[in-house]
Amino acid sequence: MARRAPLIDGLQFCRYRREIFAQMRRGKVDAAHVTIAYHENRIETLGNIAAWNRRFQDNADLLLHADSAAAIRRAMAGDKTAILFGFQNCSPLDDDLGMVQIFRGLGVCFMQLTYNNQSVLAAGCYEKHDAGVTRFGREVIREMNRVGMVVDMSHSAERSTLDAIEISRRPIAVTHANPEFFHRAPRNKSDTVLKELAQSGGVLGLSLYPHHLKSGSECSLESFCAMAERTVEIMGEKHVAIGSDLCQGHGDEVVAWMRDGKWRRKSGGEAEARWPPPLPWFAGNEDFGNIKAGLRRRGFTEAQAAAVMGGNWMNFLEHSLAPGG
Amino acid sequence: MARRAPLIDGLQFCRYRREIFAQMRRGKVDAAHVTIAYHENRIETLGNIAAWNRRFQDNADLLLHADSAAAIRRAMAGDKTAILFGFQNCSPLDDDLGMVQIFRGLGVCFMQLTYNNQSVLAAGCYEKHDAGVTRFGREVIREMNRVGMVVDMSHSAERSTLDAIEISRRPIAVTHANPEFFHRAPRNKSDTVLKELAQSGGVLGLSLYPHHLKSGSECSLESFCAMAERTVEIMGEKHVAIGSDLCQGHGDEVVAWMRDGKWRRKSGGEAEARWPPPLPWFAGNEDFGNIKAGLRRRGFTEAQAAAVMGGNWMNFLEHSLAPGG
Repeated sequence: MARRAPLIDGLQFCRYRREIFAQMRRGKVDAAHVTIAYHENRIETLGNIAAWNRRFQDNADLLLHADSAAAIRRAMAGDKTAILFGFQNCSPLDDDLGMVQIFRGLGVCFMQLTYNNQSVLAAGCYEKHDAGVTRFGREVIREMNRVGMVVDMSHSAERSTLDAIEISRRPIAVTHANPEFFHRAPRNKSDTVLKELAQSGGVLGLSLYPHHLKSGSECSLESFCAMAERTVEIMGEKHVAIGSDLCQGHGDEVVAWMRDGKWRRKSGGEAEARWPPPLPWFAGNEDFGNIKAGLRRRGFTEAQAAAVMGGNWMNFLEHSLAPGG
Repeated sequence: MARRAPLIDGLQFCRYRREIFAQMRRGKVDAAHVTIAYHENRIETLGNIAAWNRRFQDNADLLLHADSAAAIRRAMAGDKTAILFGFQNCSPLDDDLGMVQIFRGLGVCFMQLTYNNQSVLAAGCYEKHDAGVTRFGREVIREMNRVGMVVDMSHSAERSTLDAIEISRRPIAVTHANPEFFHRAPRNKSDTVLKELAQSGGVLGLSLYPHHLKSGSECSLESFCAMAERTVEIMGEKHVAIGSDLCQGHGDEVVAWMRDGKWRRKSGGEAEARWPPPLPWFAGNEDFGNIKAGLRRRGFTEAQAAAVMGGNWMNFLEHSLAPGG
């Protein structure tokens, strides 16, 4: 078994192809949670899993499909990147509680209860009002607990997020978002959420997506690391990790799909659906070393920096992905 | 064209077969809005429409499929019952705005934005909290307005209902519910909703389902007609009609399906999922005459009683089912 500290990305969604998998290996990414559905229904999601199965076959020297901490350790031992599947929305359930176990059986490890909008389970952060976790939402959280699928509230609204923390019998995650104290945006989280999440044993993955950062694409590594330090002060050093939200290689039609899905004809009064320019110090899977170096310069010990870069996700997944919560 | 006053039922969901269609004819039911989906998705709903197409073929002497006021008049002229399709939930959309026009093209005239639970469009009346119509809900209401599909808020929560009245450019309906002043139940409507609905040109269909009535299955015809009279005082005589919620011939597994759908394994702490005994004075489609007679005895004029028994629905549908709102 590998004993070195793992490097784990809590969320990314790239235009995956061999070139990116090779970058993952060069960047020593041991595991990444990748998004396999935004607005897709059950059938479309099965198609996305089938596409990933082909990628695993075609890139078996670089990747393996993981749905446990043990599988991540196998990847580390074999110099591969472990890929964990996740949904950014509950749309693949097609409103059927029974699909939670089925998708868990297909290796889906994370599910957001909502993307930006109201779902049948909870409210997204772009809704004007948030009534919290719904009747169906309670049932789904309990079922996710039972089968070992992580409740992810990254895009959810505040009350819904606090409800999910309370209802879930296992710690939950915010795989990719930043604290509101750093940059005020609907996607970022209040001090209350940070504290409740940490107290319940959950993990926050800090995001590198420019819209979640102060000064956007101009945000400096130093500024990001100062945010990480302050977040650790609030949440404790076991509860802060990275969820890069790296979206490499997509055309603008993909960000339009994320925002508009099938629910409206075109974006409303929001910013035009375009990808922001990437950060100069984090443009891809080869750049996680920059973040670790930045944290060390900020004063994080080697152990503290390693925890943020993957150790905390590893501990969390060790407990979260086993069935029977 | 038939000029007599039509008898129109604003909602029912029976175990439809020739025997019931014959009862409709004996009861002189000119038109009925029938439910073709509760929790069904797009594909399952198409199957339900196909089953109805077979019923129309097999019972062409008794029925016709209607999606306009003109078609209801054709049914009246030919001594047939006009069947109008409706959904009690938005599940057939499969979260896709584009399905509104497609289902309207297949003859679906009504859609509830929610059944009892939170949907992606609005909150149902059994949710603890109600955040109103959602972002997607606004888009769907506008699309329903455009294609001429009636927004039905029968099972929706209060704030969501008031939001829908405000957002919709065309009058909306509560096809089957009673006033809360008569019987306090999550499914019944407040005076505020009654007034706003009437002011906006909408219609309330009074329900004969025992759980919506004071004293349940023991409710007397006189008590029902007194409620109708008081409701007309609040809403005005153009805005009150009948939506019987007649659920004839189903086994208890059907009421369990309505309540639990695919979202939970079994009913929670609610009353056991069983059909209540029918009212002695309203057990089927032959019994609408009893209600009209009761209204006349209560003091409704012939014209007022005829308006409640169908004239008001006819006027509403005349304006609501045409495209281009």
